[in-house]
Amino acid sequence: MKFEHYLEKPYVYPIAEKTLKIRLKAKKGIAKKIYVLYKSIYNHDPENYLKKEMEILFQDQGYLYYEAECLNDVPYFKYNFQIITEKENFYFNIDGISRENNQKRYFFFPVINDYEIIKIPKGLPGAISYQVLIDRFASEGRTNFNELSEPEKLPDRKTYYGGNYQGLRKKIPYLQSLNVELLYLSPLFKSPTYHKYDIEDYYELDEIYGSLTDLKELIDACRQAGIKVIFDGVFNHVSSENKLFKDVIEKGENSKYKAWFYIDSFPIDKTIPNYDTFGNKLVPSMPRLNTNNDEVIKYFTDVALYWTKKLNIAGWRLDVYDEVSVKFWREFRSKLKEYNEEIIIVGEIWEQSQRWLDGSQIDSFTNYRFRDLVLDLMSKKINVSKFWELFKKHYLRYPSVYYNQFVNLLGSHDTTRLSSLFNLKQQQLALVLMLMFPGSPLLYYGDELGLEGAEDPDNRRAMRWDYLNHKDRKQLYESIVRATSLRKENKVLKEGAIIIEHYGDQILAFTRKDETDLITCVFNLGEERFVLPKGIKLLLGSNQEEIKNNEYAIFRREKK
Amino acid sequence: MKFEHYLEKPYVYPIAEKTLKIRLKAKKGIAKKIYVLYKSIYNHDPENYLKKEMEILFQDQGYLYYEAECLNDVPYFKYNFQIITEKENFYFNIDGISRENNQKRYFFFPVINDYEIIKIPKGLPGAISYQVLIDRFASEGRTNFNELSEPEKLPDRKTYYGGNYQGLRKKIPYLQSLNVELLYLSPLFKSPTYHKYDIEDYYELDEIYGSLTDLKELIDACRQAGIKVIFDGVFNHVSSENKLFKDVIEKGENSKYKAWFYIDSFPIDKTIPNYDTFGNKLVPSMPRLNTNNDEVIKYFTDVALYWTKKLNIAGWRLDVYDEVSVKFWREFRSKLKEYNEEIIIVGEIWEQSQRWLDGSQIDSFTNYRFRDLVLDLMSKKINVSKFWELFKKHYLRYPSVYYNQFVNLLGSHDTTRLSSLFNLKQQQLALVLMLMFPGSPLLYYGDELGLEGAEDPDNRRAMRWDYLNHKDRKQLYESIVRATSLRKENKVLKEGAIIIEHYGDQILAFTRKDETDLITCVFNLGEERFVLPKGIKLLLGSNQEEIKNNEYAIFRREKK
Repeated sequence: MKFEHYLEKPYVYPIAEKTLKIRLKAKKGIAKKIYVLYKSIYNHDPENYLKKEMEILFQDQGYLYYEAECLNDVPYFKYNFQIITEKENFYFNIDGISRENNQKRYFFFPVINDYEIIKIPKGLPGAISYQVLIDRFASEGRTNFNELSEPEKLPDRKTYYGGNYQGLRKKIPYLQSLNVELLYLSPLFKSPTYHKYDIEDYYELDEIYGSLTDLKELIDACRQAGIKVIFDGVFNHVSSENKLFKDVIEKGENSKYKAWFYIDSFPIDKTIPNYDTFGNKLVPSMPRLNTNNDEVIKYFTDVALYWTKKLNIAGWRLDVYDEVSVKFWREFRSKLKEYNEEIIIVGEIWEQSQRWLDGSQIDSFTNYRFRDLVLDLMSKKINVSKFWELFKKHYLRYPSVYYNQFVNLLGSHDTTRLSSLFNLKQQQLALVLMLMFPGSPLLYYGDELGLEGAEDPDNRRAMRWDYLNHKDRKQLYESIVRATSLRKENKVLKEGAIIIEHYGDQILAFTRKDETDLITCVFNLGEERFVLPKGIKLLLGSNQEEIKNNEYAIFRREKK
Repeated sequence: MKFEHYLEKPYVYPIAEKTLKIRLKAKKGIAKKIYVLYKSIYNHDPENYLKKEMEILFQDQGYLYYEAECLNDVPYFKYNFQIITEKENFYFNIDGISRENNQKRYFFFPVINDYEIIKIPKGLPGAISYQVLIDRFASEGRTNFNELSEPEKLPDRKTYYGGNYQGLRKKIPYLQSLNVELLYLSPLFKSPTYHKYDIEDYYELDEIYGSLTDLKELIDACRQAGIKVIFDGVFNHVSSENKLFKDVIEKGENSKYKAWFYIDSFPIDKTIPNYDTFGNKLVPSMPRLNTNNDEVIKYFTDVALYWTKKLNIAGWRLDVYDEVSVKFWREFRSKLKEYNEEIIIVGEIWEQSQRWLDGSQIDSFTNYRFRDLVLDLMSKKINVSKFWELFKKHYLRYPSVYYNQFVNLLGSHDTTRLSSLFNLKQQQLALVLMLMFPGSPLLYYGDELGLEGAEDPDNRRAMRWDYLNHKDRKQLYESIVRATSLRKENKVLKEGAIIIEHYGDQILAFTRKDETDLITCVFNLGEERFVLPKGIKLLLGSNQEEIKNNEYAIFRREKK
C-alpha cells in the first residue's frame, strides 16, 4: 500500500481538548509535501477547512512516517490527506487514493472526549531519575552498613544492610550533583523481607528504614532540593503474612477475602501452593491478587491515594504492571489524577507496552527494550543499522507523544549491572547515550560509579561511597555529572525530537531538535577514528577534532 | 518485513481464561506451514512447550494472514512462531527472524486477566435482526395509520403516524416468518418528538406508543416467539425539555447539573445556543451531555440498568456511540454485564470501529462500511476485486472473533433505502448477500418489501402492509424468507468462517466454512452467465445450471 492511516493509536489520538496528533505512513518517492486538511464533522462547506503541513517523524527502508498536530476550533474532527507530488496533487481518504477532496469520505474522529486525551504530567518529560534500594544505599546511625558493603561480602537474599531514610537524606547533595529530578524508592511498607516486594500491611511503614517522621523529613528535604519522590507500588501480590491472606488461611470458604485471591481448594496449603502466586505458584510467600475484583481494586487504589496524600509524593512505579488487570489500573489512574493530575504513573513492563499506553492507565513504562538494544549494540550482536531498525520498529508502535517520557534504563535490581558486561569507558558511553536519548533516563544507584553486580542478588550490593575516591570511578561519575548538567541546561535534550544521523555501521549518531536548538550526539563504537564536522560547538567529549573507539562527542549545530 | 506480529489487538488477545487468539502477517511464498510454540512465561524448560498449527484467515496481494487459537494450561503466555519452509525451519520472535527457538526472546503476553477477555453474548453471533421505528411500523386501535401511509402522504419531521406496541405485537407472526431473532426498537422514553431521539424523562415511557403493560406484553410475546428485544439508548444528548437541562436554564451557575453539559456562558440561550448540542450547536433542542462526568455516567448507566431489569430486555443499540466517552461505555458495560453477561451491546458507529472493540465496551457496531461496499459494488463504482480488497482492509483491523457479530446493514432510518437506488431484483441480491455474509444482518423494516424511501425524512415512511399483496414485492419478501430460513437452519451461515472465492471481477463469491459444512454463495453482478459447478446441492437460487445478471446461487459443497 502506498499510504496507510487507521482510526486508532498510534495513527490518531487526542493530545488536547481540540488537538489531534495524526500520523500517515507513506511510501517513499511519491510525495513532495503532505498536508492534513481537517474540519468539524458537522461542517459541510467544501471550501472551509484547516490545513497543516506534516513533518517526517521517521523513515525506514520503504516508508516515511509523517506526523502533524492539528488544532481545530471545535473538538469534532474529520480529515483527509493532501498529497503534493512533482506532477500532481491528490488525496488519501478512508477509501484510499482519490482525485477529489471528498468530505464524505474523510477519516472521522467524531469528537475528543476529555477522558481520552493523552495527558502527560509536567514533571515527567525528560526528567533525570535515580533508583535506590533503600536498604542498600546509605545508612545513618548504624554500624553494619560499611562492614557488609565490603566487596568480599556479597549480598544474599536475606541479609539487611542497614540503609535508612536518614542515611538517604544525607545523600541528597550527591543526588543533586547528578541533577536528579525524580527519586525512585524501593518498597517501604511493612514486609518480612529486606526488598519488601511482599507486603504484610499496606497501611504501615516498615520500621527498619526509620519512622514516619524520618520518611517525611526525607521527602521534604528532597522537595526542597528539587527532587520528587516516586514510591514503588506492589499490587500484583501480597505477602502470605498479610492479614487479608491470613484471613483466607484461617476461615477458608468463609473468608470474605477468598475472592481476592486465586484459590484452587481449601484449606490453603503453603508447601505446595493450592493458590496462584507471583511467578505462577513458584513463590508461595507471595499470593497473587485477583485484580479484576472490584473490592480488591477499591482497597488497593485507596491505599495508593492514602499515601499519595499523606506524604505528598510525586508518583508511583508499579511493580509487575503487566500482570495486573487494566480495570485496576484505570481506576488507579482515575483516583490519583482526580486528586492531582500531575501524579506520575510508571508501569514496570519489560516488553512492548502499547497495550497499556492508551491514556487511561500509565504515563510511561520501564523501557527495558532500550537496554536490550544498547547492550546488543555494544556487545556487537547487532550493528548500528540494526539498532535503528529495531528502535524504529519499537517506537513506531507508540503514540510519539510518549517518546520523551519513556523511562529508559540500562540496569535495575532485576538485571545484571552494566559493570558486569563492559569496562568503565564503555559504561560511560552507554550511560551518556542514555542521558542524551529521548525519554526519562533512570540511573540505577551506583552505576555512575561502576558499582559491580551480576545477577540477583549480586546486583543489589550496598553502595560503595568509597568509590568516589577511586580515580577512574570518580572520572565516570564526573562524566555523568557533566551529561546530566547538559541535559538539565538544554530543553532540547529533555523535550526535543530525535533525528537519526547516518555515519555508517560503527557510529551511533542522532540529533535532538526543537524549534530553537539542534544538538548532535555521536558515539563511536568502531575502531576507526571519527572526524567531527568543522565549526561545531563541542558540549561534551574529549577531543574537538576526532573521537576514538568508545568515545563520544555532543555538539551544538546552527539552526538552518 | 517478511513477518509481522505485535503485542496488541488484532495480533493477540484473550478469548477465554487460558486461550489467546494469535495472528501473524507473513509474506507470501516463504512458509509451507506455521506453528505457534507457546508456554507459561514462568516455564523455563526449553523442551517443554505446546504447539498449534496456524490457519490462513485472509490473503492479499503480498501477504498471508494466519491465525491460531492457543489453549494453555495456565493463563500465563509466551510464544514464538515456527516457520516451516521447503528447505529449512526457522523462528520468528520479538527481535525478528531467528535460527533459534530462544525462549528469552519469545513474545510475552504475561497473563490473561478475566476483565480483558473478549466475551461475546450467546444471542449475537449471526443473529437475524430487524429494526423498526415504532411510530411507523404497525398500529392497532388507531385510525390514522393507514391513511397517512398512503404513498402521496410522505413523512415530514413532525407528524405522528400512530404506530404502537399493540400494533407491533400483532405483527410478531410476520417477524417470525422472517426468522427474526433480535428486534431493534426505536427510542420509547418520554420525548417531545415522534422519533424520540431527544428524551425528556429517562424514567418514563412515552405514552403515545401505549402503556407499560402494552410494552411488557409486547416484550413477553416476542420472547415466546423466540425474538429478543433491543432498546435504542440515547446517552449522547437529552431533550432541552429534560428536567436536568431545565434546572440549568433556571438556576444557571447554581444548578447542580451545570457540569453535566457543555455550557459556554449563563444564562442559557436556546436561540443561538451557548452550549454544545448534538451536531455541535446545530440542534438547540438536543443539549449534549458531558459523558466524562462521573455523575452523568452514574445517572445514565443506572437508567439503562433500571430498564434492563424491569423489562428483561436483551440489550441496547447505543445512539451516537462514537461521541460518548469511553469512560461512560466501560462503566455501562460493567454494570449491565454484571447483571447479566448475555446482554447485547451494539454501538452506532459509521466508520472504522476498532478503537471501541477492545472487549471493555461494545459487543458489536453498526457496520455501515458493509453497506458502502455493497452499494459501491452494485452501482459499479468498484469491481469485485476492489470490493474484497476494501473488505479485507476493513476486517483485518479487527479481532477476527468479532466478524460473526458485526451488525451488517444495507439501510436504516439515517440512510437512503435500497429501493431508491436499485430495482427489486438488485435489492433481492443485496439483501440475500447480507443474509449469507458473516455477521448479524439487520433488516430495516420494509426493505424486505421494497418499501420506498430517499433521504430522511422520506426513509421513515409507514410500513406498507398492502405490499404483501403486490406480486413482485411479495416475491422479494419470499426470497428473504427463504434466505433467513436457510441461515436459521445452517449453523455455518451464522458462525462459520468466510473464504473468498475468485471467479473474476463480475462474480462476487465466497464460501462459509466450519468443521462440518461448506456453503458457497455466488452473486452474478455482470452480464455474462455464470455456469455453476457440477454435482452441487443448490440451496437457494433459480437455476441449477447457470445464473444470469443479478441472480445468485447458494449451494452446499462436499467437505474434502
